Amino acid sequence: MPKKPKILSTKTIARTKIFTIERMHLRFENGCEVEYERIVSPPGGAVLIVPQLNDTTVLLIREYCGGIQRYEIAFPKGRIENNESITESANREIMEEIGYAANHIEPIKTVTVSPGYNNHQTHIVFATDLYEHRLDGDEPEPIEVIPWDINKLNDLLQNKEFTEARSIAALFLLKDRFFKTGVMQ
Amino acid sequence: MPKKPKILSTKTIARTKIFTIERMHLRFENGCEVEYERIVSPPGGAVLIVPQLNDTTVLLIREYCGGIQRYEIAFPKGRIENNESITESANREIMEEIGYAANHIEPIKTVTVSPGYNNHQTHIVFATDLYEHRLDGDEPEPIEVIPWDINKLNDLLQNKEFTEARSIAALFLLKDRFFKTGVMQ
Repeated sequence: MPKKPKILSTKTIARTKIFTIERMHLRFENGCEVEYERIVSPPGGAVLIVPQLNDTTVLLIREYCGGIQRYEIAFPKGRIENNESITESANREIMEEIGYAANHIEPIKTVTVSPGYNNHQTHIVFATDLYEHRLDGDEPEPIEVIPWDINKLNDLLQNKEFTEARSIAALFLLKDRFFKTGVMQ
Repeated sequence: MPKKPKILSTKTIARTKIFTIERMHLRFENGCEVEYERIVSPPGGAVLIVPQLNDTTVLLIREYCGGIQRYEIAFPKGRIENNESITESANREIMEEIGYAANHIEPIKTVTVSPGYNNHQTHIVFATDLYEHRLDGDEPEPIEVIPWDINKLNDLLQNKEFTEARSIAALFLLKDRFFKTGVMQ
């Protein structure tokens, strides 16, 4: 394993309501010195939930995304708030976004997003044994919930509204699970 | 389809060497007004390449990631430079990062990364019919190239250095391709 570069200094160079940007001065093992910038996210990260309603249906949402300025279909997700566990955060997010809670939350894989420039991590979890339970969120408009047939998961890959890398990773992790357990071919 | 919110105003509120942050004032169809922030990336986006060396091997890289401050295994990727096509950019990146060019580049899926907060898009492509051709890049140290057995792709999902959502999505897209063409079960 290569030895990590030494971080000679770090400095916050911009801070907005949402984003904090840090500049780091690094020295690599070979003596090469560089300056890198990164976005520093809150340490808890985020959770992305694959909610399985029954043997044939998962629940997706359609929500406006300010970054790409259009609506997007994705699995529910959100930031982990102070002191929440992954399970608590996942349950709060699905109560707010789809009106269900889950008796069973199973962490599957923790993923990074643009790790060259961002310290963010997202915990992908599967949520099963759902029951109706709605919490009010802070969304500007009601979120559309989209039930999706488990036998048509491949159609999602062709859908121009389904583009988010973490949701695509989660979709495949789900297919992998179904394939291993014999639910689908 | 829901009607997009109206963008009442936008303002650049921070600019560093790498990042530009914009604040948008939006009015949703229901009259609710909100302020969102987003990172504005160069319009060309990025390319992520799955280079297949032969019938049994794909090539990965291990590279230091400033965002998470550790080394990470991933598929080669990089920003599309001015006036480059996706194919040109993909070939330049693999020449710089793994020392190969490809006679065949096939675009597979364009994905977004944190579309709620970022306008970035990455074009995932498959590169086949490779030949040796090295270009110098601007990396601070040589990039380690890791040949990976196609029959052991699932091991990557357990690897703690393989966490980037786009690379995971690309891995599954590759598995999907192999499965459909009968290369693997």
